[in-house]
Amino acid sequence: MVRYKEAMKLNCTELVSALRDIYDLRSARAVLEWDQSTYMPPKGNDARARQIALLSELAHQKLCAEKLGELLLYCSSGVDISDDDQALVREARRDRDRAVKVPSSLVREISETCGQAHAIWIEARKKNNFKLYAPVLKKVVELKKQEAHAIGFGQGVPYDALLDGFEPGATVKMLDPIIAETREITTRVVEATSNSRRKPKIRILRRKYPLKQQEQFGFAVLLKMGYDLDAGRLDSAVHPFSTSFDVEDSRITTRYDERYFNDAIFSTIHEGGHALYEQGFQKKYSGTPLAEAISMGIHESQSRLWENQVGRSLQLWKYFFPKARKLFPQALSGVKLEDFYFAINAVQPSLIRVDADEVTYNLHIIIRYELEQALFSGEIQVQDLPKLWNDKMKAYLGIRPRKDSEGVLQDIHWSFGGFGYFPSYLLGNLYAAQWSAFMKKDLKKFDQLLTQGNLVPIKKWLNENIHQHGRRYNAQQLIMKITGEALNPEYFGNYLRDKFQPLYDVKW
Amino acid sequence: MVRYKEAMKLNCTELVSALRDIYDLRSARAVLEWDQSTYMPPKGNDARARQIALLSELAHQKLCAEKLGELLLYCSSGVDISDDDQALVREARRDRDRAVKVPSSLVREISETCGQAHAIWIEARKKNNFKLYAPVLKKVVELKKQEAHAIGFGQGVPYDALLDGFEPGATVKMLDPIIAETREITTRVVEATSNSRRKPKIRILRRKYPLKQQEQFGFAVLLKMGYDLDAGRLDSAVHPFSTSFDVEDSRITTRYDERYFNDAIFSTIHEGGHALYEQGFQKKYSGTPLAEAISMGIHESQSRLWENQVGRSLQLWKYFFPKARKLFPQALSGVKLEDFYFAINAVQPSLIRVDADEVTYNLHIIIRYELEQALFSGEIQVQDLPKLWNDKMKAYLGIRPRKDSEGVLQDIHWSFGGFGYFPSYLLGNLYAAQWSAFMKKDLKKFDQLLTQGNLVPIKKWLNENIHQHGRRYNAQQLIMKITGEALNPEYFGNYLRDKFQPLYDVKW
Repeated sequence: MVRYKEAMKLNCTELVSALRDIYDLRSARAVLEWDQSTYMPPKGNDARARQIALLSELAHQKLCAEKLGELLLYCSSGVDISDDDQALVREARRDRDRAVKVPSSLVREISETCGQAHAIWIEARKKNNFKLYAPVLKKVVELKKQEAHAIGFGQGVPYDALLDGFEPGATVKMLDPIIAETREITTRVVEATSNSRRKPKIRILRRKYPLKQQEQFGFAVLLKMGYDLDAGRLDSAVHPFSTSFDVEDSRITTRYDERYFNDAIFSTIHEGGHALYEQGFQKKYSGTPLAEAISMGIHESQSRLWENQVGRSLQLWKYFFPKARKLFPQALSGVKLEDFYFAINAVQPSLIRVDADEVTYNLHIIIRYELEQALFSGEIQVQDLPKLWNDKMKAYLGIRPRKDSEGVLQDIHWSFGGFGYFPSYLLGNLYAAQWSAFMKKDLKKFDQLLTQGNLVPIKKWLNENIHQHGRRYNAQQLIMKITGEALNPEYFGNYLRDKFQPLYDVKW
Repeated sequence: MVRYKEAMKLNCTELVSALRDIYDLRSARAVLEWDQSTYMPPKGNDARARQIALLSELAHQKLCAEKLGELLLYCSSGVDISDDDQALVREARRDRDRAVKVPSSLVREISETCGQAHAIWIEARKKNNFKLYAPVLKKVVELKKQEAHAIGFGQGVPYDALLDGFEPGATVKMLDPIIAETREITTRVVEATSNSRRKPKIRILRRKYPLKQQEQFGFAVLLKMGYDLDAGRLDSAVHPFSTSFDVEDSRITTRYDERYFNDAIFSTIHEGGHALYEQGFQKKYSGTPLAEAISMGIHESQSRLWENQVGRSLQLWKYFFPKARKLFPQALSGVKLEDFYFAINAVQPSLIRVDADEVTYNLHIIIRYELEQALFSGEIQVQDLPKLWNDKMKAYLGIRPRKDSEGVLQDIHWSFGGFGYFPSYLLGNLYAAQWSAFMKKDLKKFDQLLTQGNLVPIKKWLNENIHQHGRRYNAQQLIMKITGEALNPEYFGNYLRDKFQPLYDVKW
């Protein structure tokens, strides 16, 4: 029995080391991608594409290696394996099982087709010509259908297999009622706020905000959030993102617009929320599923909670607005806190998802979800997309794009085969509202913490309740564990009601 | 025959792709190292060490793979293989042959021991305690001896095997007379200049040079050199270095000292010279030995030529000094060009190699070469090093270190097992003098180009004569091809004479 235990331990050490190699290869790739988006000189791109493709391939090979399969089988059969090790093995098996199901010829074909699709998408968007894009997009959809069938979807539908890649366990059956309820909640808010006579003075935000001071302000907020700058960085990039190479190297980027206050600061807070999740894993599990995010939706709940529940709250700006006024005297000296608060929370239907406010944002997502689902069930075809897109925009948001580059061609996701990804953005909003409702119960004087700029207790609550577990629990288990119930859009509804009814002086 | 050719072509395509993978893995590692020295947050170091070790191991595995050996054998047997392909195969075989000769157990032991040695060296230097360092250094020497024997050294000595790693084809037998002659030349200059009554006003360089302007000045010089900033970058780092991830992504770093003019600008020019070499390879050969440096000595000849023959010439400063005076009015407004030129060319024996001028620098190298050679021949032991070091410093430079941290403990190289590397620094100076002698013949009005700040013809000469060939010729062949004779220290002697006799108003 002793020898059995010894062998067990040896094999599990080997397993962790094999998993860590895969993680390190992916991290190395992520460093290369970070550099590509921040500091790489433009001509470096050819070689960079080659390096990234090579590291991806090596990581995939290592994940699919037979030896890893054997190690996983061996370690999962242990009788006295700890709970953590059990979770580690379970999640690693999940990853490997998904990976080995897809034939490498299909992986390669998808990657090559998406390479083309991405270039064509850029051109089609520039030329406002969906027909240019349709043939390759059709091929991508076809290949992703093959992938879905290769992965399998039990009693469900092919789209489930793709959802599961971003949101483990999520299915259309599970999402449909949640999405329907969110649509109802959101359209109600959009309608009520559009009909209100109170209008935010959004032009306040379009004054001149010097870049240097914006950067300074961003750092100040990040530090208050408890973001560890010895284990991260803030840089600028065309599209803000967060990335992580390790528990102790989790970086963010933002984007500065001298003529728009919101861009940099809320991107910084948003990405900072993502980064705090990655910094919150346990170092001892670094490189294993126990130091990884549960799902994209949970990841997004971290960024959205910080961006919206915290970052766009009146309480927080009671603390930060006087500081902002000092930094931007020209833009903000005569401005009242209440007007500023209203402006950063303006609800306004618009065409472009990435510029949308926290209310209408969900409708953008829902449109994409409904279209993706119908595409993969065969209900609609690629050529139907532009018209359906515009119809849905009109129906849900009350506005109709005048051209496809402002409509169906706006998003990058489909060009890289990212079907099933969009719902995570919406789930993030819902999770965030549910977390914050319970956080407020746990942290007495929550509002007071905000008005004092004392955000570390919030970070600690997230560390303890969410971050430290890595993938020990799945999203469904975690929300049950923390809030005692499943994901419930009502929390989001309540949050919107409490915030936007007084702001717009309306009821619904 | 057609089918044979087809198969040949196919295999050679496969060979190039395999070599490119190895190159890309090394480049990925180099990106990680660049980030580590520039932007990485301090806590990221643990994971970074892991990622770098993993990529090194994978690159080594791929280089040693049997399949690559077969491809090389197959491709080298081709009857109608082009000259370029022949060179490519020859050099790739050279790399692989060296790599497979060293057992991977020894590779690992060296890497682990050097990991320890590096940490111990840092502590020993801080505590000025060589005895702390001696045991691990002894072990490193022992392991490197084993490596030398594994690689082999024909009729030569073990140290040759290490020299060959940095300077293919170099041997003690070949270097000894070159080094002896260089020592003679150099000591003569040091003696003569020390005895001169003319002294440079070096305090000019210690005035206040604002950092922002230093950076601006560095960029201006780089652009004049023809450094392509769309295929490179300039950042700052504790120790200036250049690194390359591809022909079109070749970056440099420098170091700024507000109170010392020389530091940033000459590091920038030096590293810029390295980067121009890498940018000068043929893009179509990217990732193969035909787009790689011949040797460390040839690489160093590029940086030294730009730094000294160009960068410290009176002619160049006729162009740049008025610009410098505008940028640094406080420091330079009353200064005469001649005084400035003398100051940046001051010859002054000093203890620390990296701070040495271009004359005394060689004596620092010679000391290390002589000690390394004696260590590997068994003539001396590790414990003899401190005393021998200090004796040689006194004999060659006329000064004796008061403590080992300023003496034998100053260099990092031995701690990472870099025995055999130092001579490349000296060879670089000799090659640079020989290149520039012939460049001056080819480029009529060379001096005029400098006084006009028109440096691109110099870059083009290097591109055509040196860079574009990659490793097609070895160093011995290349210098014969360009100058019609072997490496000859006389050129260096002439260069020193022409420059320093008038400066110091002396003869030797």
